[in-house]
Amino acid sequence: MATGTPQRLADLAGYLEGELIGDGERMIARVASLESAAEGDISFITHARFRPQLASCRASAVIVPPALAGETSLPRVVCAEPYLAYARAARRLSAGAPVPAGVHPSAVVEQGAQVATDAAVGAGAYIGRGAIIGPRSQIGAGSQVGAGCNIGSACVLHARVTLYPGCTLGDRCIVHSGAVIGADGFGFAPERGAWLKIPQTGGVLIGDDVEIGANTTIDRGALDDTVIENGVKLDNQIQVAHNVRIGAHTAIAAMTGIAGSASIGKHCMIGGAVRILGHISITDGVEIAATTYVSKSIVKAGKYSGALPFAPTASWFKVVAWIKNLDKLAERIKALEKKLGHSRD
Amino acid sequence: MATGTPQRLADLAGYLEGELIGDGERMIARVASLESAAEGDISFITHARFRPQLASCRASAVIVPPALAGETSLPRVVCAEPYLAYARAARRLSAGAPVPAGVHPSAVVEQGAQVATDAAVGAGAYIGRGAIIGPRSQIGAGSQVGAGCNIGSACVLHARVTLYPGCTLGDRCIVHSGAVIGADGFGFAPERGAWLKIPQTGGVLIGDDVEIGANTTIDRGALDDTVIENGVKLDNQIQVAHNVRIGAHTAIAAMTGIAGSASIGKHCMIGGAVRILGHISITDGVEIAATTYVSKSIVKAGKYSGALPFAPTASWFKVVAWIKNLDKLAERIKALEKKLGHSRD
Amino acid sequence: MATGTPQRLADLAGYLEGELIGDGERMIARVASLESAAEGDISFITHARFRPQLASCRASAVIVPPALAGETSLPRVVCAEPYLAYARAARRLSAGAPVPAGVHPSAVVEQGAQVATDAAVGAGAYIGRGAIIGPRSQIGAGSQVGAGCNIGSACVLHARVTLYPGCTLGDRCIVHSGAVIGADGFGFAPERGAWLKIPQTGGVLIGDDVEIGANTTIDRGALDDTVIENGVKLDNQIQVAHNVRIGAHTAIAAMTGIAGSASIGKHCMIGGAVRILGHISITDGVEIAATTYVSKSIVKAGKYSGALPFAPTASWFKVVAWIKNLDKLAERIKALEKKLGHSRD
Repeated sequence: MATGTPQRLADLAGYLEGELIGDGERMIARVASLESAAEGDISFITHARFRPQLASCRASAVIVPPALAGETSLPRVVCAEPYLAYARAARRLSAGAPVPAGVHPSAVVEQGAQVATDAAVGAGAYIGRGAIIGPRSQIGAGSQVGAGCNIGSACVLHARVTLYPGCTLGDRCIVHSGAVIGADGFGFAPERGAWLKIPQTGGVLIGDDVEIGANTTIDRGALDDTVIENGVKLDNQIQVAHNVRIGAHTAIAAMTGIAGSASIGKHCMIGGAVRILGHISITDGVEIAATTYVSKSIVKAGKYSGALPFAPTASWFKVVAWIKNLDKLAERIKALEKKLGHSRD
Repeated sequence: MATGTPQRLADLAGYLEGELIGDGERMIARVASLESAAEGDISFITHARFRPQLASCRASAVIVPPALAGETSLPRVVCAEPYLAYARAARRLSAGAPVPAGVHPSAVVEQGAQVATDAAVGAGAYIGRGAIIGPRSQIGAGSQVGAGCNIGSACVLHARVTLYPGCTLGDRCIVHSGAVIGADGFGFAPERGAWLKIPQTGGVLIGDDVEIGANTTIDRGALDDTVIENGVKLDNQIQVAHNVRIGAHTAIAAMTGIAGSASIGKHCMIGGAVRILGHISITDGVEIAATTYVSKSIVKAGKYSGALPFAPTASWFKVVAWIKNLDKLAERIKALEKKLGHSRD
Repeated sequence: MATGTPQRLADLAGYLEGELIGDGERMIARVASLESAAEGDISFITHARFRPQLASCRASAVIVPPALAGETSLPRVVCAEPYLAYARAARRLSAGAPVPAGVHPSAVVEQGAQVATDAAVGAGAYIGRGAIIGPRSQIGAGSQVGAGCNIGSACVLHARVTLYPGCTLGDRCIVHSGAVIGADGFGFAPERGAWLKIPQTGGVLIGDDVEIGANTTIDRGALDDTVIENGVKLDNQIQVAHNVRIGAHTAIAAMTGIAGSASIGKHCMIGGAVRILGHISITDGVEIAATTYVSKSIVKAGKYSGALPFAPTASWFKVVAWIKNLDKLAERIKALEKKLGHSRD
């Protein structure tokens, strides 16, 4: 669906700063996988294990690493980093028609809101009092931008995004449908057996080039702001609690939850369904495996995991029985050691 | 609330292909649990352990298995599979008034979209350019159907569903509120310390009779499509990443996450909060226990688990201490074996 | 952003029932953290470990516990429970301007719906047939209130909330954006290799003073209702399946999932990403640590955990290898015991 203007292969090779081998006059309209590519497509190969797919590929051209440049007779662009080259080619080819600027007649723009003349506000969208929508930004159909929000330039809010009042986004951010930014943090004080709500008076401050996935939630701060630095990429259904800070260029996969006031460094890579305890710190350059529960601070860059294995249920039940009784296993070892007069040194 | 047209018990028994015992003239208006049923209700019992509730049940009739047919004097319908019979009775009785066809005046239908004359488009809904809404399909209030989507016949999109452009649904699909179908997959290439977004140019292809729960997200493919086959049932808050394939008639409980390019077979049953690693395959007929992390492919049908136990916190902390030190426990065993000159055979 | 009407410090101290030390004429406009407070702010300190921040604090006043009353020369309010006092001060100071009553011209109110004259219905909201919106309640922009819903007084539904038909909310409830209340429970009966949907004919019954987080989902009951009692606080992205009951004043952190027909007691505190199996019961006064999988009933009040540790990946892999082979470790112990003629008593 996302096909852009076709380009000469030679021009595309030049853009990718790759070496062209073969017919540079072929017209390329889109990227495609080795299996599904057809005429007009450019495909790519990243690893020798995909040679069989390369052999039967029907693309008009292929992006290849130097080591595989001789593996095909198709026209090809040799690039040191074929995956990055594919990404760049896809971006160049998929640039769709620009969304027409202007405010849809069914949208509601409250008094004092400023919508740049070249911004677009979709059907049924709502822009609250005093909100600012920067140049070339797009607010999707049905999205809600609360009073006093400040959205930079060239942002894309897809359909049905919600920003509570007073949130700030930098430039070139992308926010997917169903994301909720700036809802109240979960803060209550116990009072005579019930819970007294603590007003959440901080905001959410989001930098430039941040992408936020579908149905992800980012709560506003209790007093100070929740902060997402430049270049952070958040997948779908992530929960970011109040007063969390996520450092620049950190990428986090889907369904990860980050509890209140946790601080995550820059250039981290965090897998899916990771759970991060509140009030801890994770330093820069940390990689965390999917499903890990990070229950204390990490002060040293590197890879961490707490992921469990699985097994056929009957086998796993045996493992679980031992886990529950590790105490007893340890006692049995201790008893043996005692009997043998074995000293642990 | 969901009461339909009352029916004679004898007619209902005929529809259920069960044996009627007792007064077939009673009028039945709805299904109810054994505890809450009153006059006009039909209830059901699936297992002898619910005999006490049956004894005090005030329903007008009960669906019973043959083994329990003698346990009540209420009018009853004897069915080999009472739970299935209940499901069928509930469907027959709960058929509500049809939603009036037509496009609500506050909805927006873009140029070139085709809405069947007997389809319904709710208040504030948005239908993008070139989208197709098939016969008898209902688009809920506030839902967003992107450009070029193709929705089959007799589908129900509840309020506030989002379909990104270019998604395809078969016939008789049900999509619950807050679901987001076709958002960008999470794909980035590293480029000089930042992340370069890879355009996600595949689509989402959903078969017939698929149900998708509230706030579930299904991402579009990177190049090829994300595919959900016929009869798949997805609960709430499930994440389906790009290029996943889910085989026909597989049912998945809430909060399960499936990472990119994973392939799940047909007729699988996957519990809640399961996490499935990317690029793995699960064969047909696999059952996975709730909370399991499926970190490698499963090639044989059967039941699998990786679920942990829990305990009072003080006891559990001891278990955790041993888990962290399993290495040392093992060394102590090794030392004992050495001391005893014990050879492991 | 959430500043209300400034108050004299002496008045605020009286409201908090605390002892004022210092200049009571200072005007206080908002609460702020020790680090970020400036003139016009009141801050608070709960623990001696924050003394350094107190020393450099530039607030106009501070709430302090008796033990720390001598640690600052700033005007201060001495309170036995400073955190609770902060919560109460924040509530008093953050009371924003009231939302204007009335139905936005772009909202749709169906026939037979009753909206109190002092209630507010936001832009693009939808109120279904026969729904009741109580006095002073606010329905946010783009929210969907299904037919026959009954919303009490002084409730706040933020933007883009969905209530399916027939849901009931008590008084003073707060529902955050993206929450979906009353979607169908996940109920299917197997029928010839496919799944037959079981109509979900119960409702959702929510008490007074309940708060529901962003993108949380609460399914309607299969036959009887799903019930959330008074004072329950639910964080973001929680899943509550059909026929669950949550007891009064229980608080549940984000991303927790509760499977069908589970019953949770009153005054429980449940951490984030907890998973609770269906059909089990948890008694009153139970605390559950984050990420625990509660796989059986809890009959005794107290603290429970099933949370795993984590480690650098290489170390963790060793732990995992032992976990998978606990069976073999146990056999080695048994062999040693046998060799030593050691009887386990």
